[in-house]
Amino acid sequence: MRTLSENRCFGGVQGVYAHASEATGCEMTFGLFLPKEAEEQPVPVLWYLSGLTCTHENAMVKAGAQRWAAEAGIALVFPDTSPRGEGVADDPAYDLGQGAGFYVNATEEPWSKHYRMWDYIAEDLPRTLFSAFPLAPEAQAITGHSMGGHGALTLAMGLPGRFRSVSAFAPIANPTASDWGRKQLTAYLGADEAKWAAHDSTLQLKRRGFDGPILIDQGSSDQFLDLLKPETLAEALTATRHNATFRMQKGYDHSYFFVSTFMESHIAFHADHLLA
Amino acid sequence: MRTLSENRCFGGVQGVYAHASEATGCEMTFGLFLPKEAEEQPVPVLWYLSGLTCTHENAMVKAGAQRWAAEAGIALVFPDTSPRGEGVADDPAYDLGQGAGFYVNATEEPWSKHYRMWDYIAEDLPRTLFSAFPLAPEAQAITGHSMGGHGALTLAMGLPGRFRSVSAFAPIANPTASDWGRKQLTAYLGADEAKWAAHDSTLQLKRRGFDGPILIDQGSSDQFLDLLKPETLAEALTATRHNATFRMQKGYDHSYFFVSTFMESHIAFHADHLLA
Repeated sequence: MRTLSENRCFGGVQGVYAHASEATGCEMTFGLFLPKEAEEQPVPVLWYLSGLTCTHENAMVKAGAQRWAAEAGIALVFPDTSPRGEGVADDPAYDLGQGAGFYVNATEEPWSKHYRMWDYIAEDLPRTLFSAFPLAPEAQAITGHSMGGHGALTLAMGLPGRFRSVSAFAPIANPTASDWGRKQLTAYLGADEAKWAAHDSTLQLKRRGFDGPILIDQGSSDQFLDLLKPETLAEALTATRHNATFRMQKGYDHSYFFVSTFMESHIAFHADHLLA
Repeated sequence: MRTLSENRCFGGVQGVYAHASEATGCEMTFGLFLPKEAEEQPVPVLWYLSGLTCTHENAMVKAGAQRWAAEAGIALVFPDTSPRGEGVADDPAYDLGQGAGFYVNATEEPWSKHYRMWDYIAEDLPRTLFSAFPLAPEAQAITGHSMGGHGALTLAMGLPGRFRSVSAFAPIANPTASDWGRKQLTAYLGADEAKWAAHDSTLQLKRRGFDGPILIDQGSSDQFLDLLKPETLAEALTATRHNATFRMQKGYDHSYFFVSTFMESHIAFHADHLLA
């Protein structure tokens, strides 16, 4: 593992590290905020999965999350959104290939060699994190924005017992029925739609569900509402009687101005469960 | 004036606007955060001047300032750091020309035509702001980072009565004695050092001073300490008996992780005086 940068931040350290990933077969970069409590003991971890076109860096510099994580004594992990590098397949579109891993393990060419973001987030990065840093594996939660909200919800349901709580900002809620989803799931997983279901949070809520609290924020002026399909998620959360809060935030759009506005309450939500 | 974007943010609006500037002779872009109180009445204004290489955007997305401005009911202005555009003189170095206006009115070629950032901040942008937005001209304060901290301090002292309070994050404190200063002041103002004094906050503190409270934060691990020369500013503040607080923040560097960490207390400091 290589240290790319470490900056003092809200009494803790915001680091950026690179490590060789077995899952993706390339070097991966991630951000990690450690609150000052980590100098004394392992601390709880909140994962933040980012959206299309993002790297590890966007949320790390724009979401304003460190302030609230420092106050709660919680670490923040900011993974990248895809494998990267010259030998890694890509596509000219912003929503496929590098920056658009969709948190799945690709089975189709030319993606299957490197695009294994589910395994990267579920196995590979945790292995590195929990061996190298003072983090408490029994106290994990997960959140994300847009494609990252999709990733947070599907990983939380796909890894029962791993995360105590899950939240999302404007998640891609029903990718099997959206242009943000059908294109990518076809490319990465092939045309058999039965294989897509594990990667659709609306479907997974009805099939597997999540054994913990769920918080969703969605802006009412989001320019991508037709692609995100939040109503399918709200319906599924309610129909399944999950312990969930869905908040439609009047006038907010899809930007980080929306994410940063509600970050304080997402971190407080997770802290309630991580520190319980 | 053109609206480039408006995003709902912490209950208010983060806007980006472009306007034709008489001072710089080109179109200038600025960010403006209006808290929700601005829907009802004119609100106080905190100016944030940015550092080398920055545009209006860096602090707007990275400083985490809107949260605290929203809480206090204060507007934030994020000006650009230089004139821009194809017809505007530039230099290959990051610290001269576009992105490096140093908040002076250039008198030398090729800079004098457009590089009039003092007048832009002191006259031109206020004229646009106070005619187009519900802002209270009698309640203004100013802050900034690095070159922007230099700008905030020198403008606050150079425009007596304009700003109620001034603060700075790691300001270029003594540019007439630094490689961050001598090069630019020579280029923009010429070789006569007598003309530089109005643009050196350490010298101005001793010559003119500031009739209000001053707050300075400086990271002890700042990679640019030799260029910033904070000790000259601390000495001048103390020798002149100004109402000032100078805080050396252990372990912090020059990045926005430093700025965002202390933004809450800078905005609280200004709010005390703007809302008094």
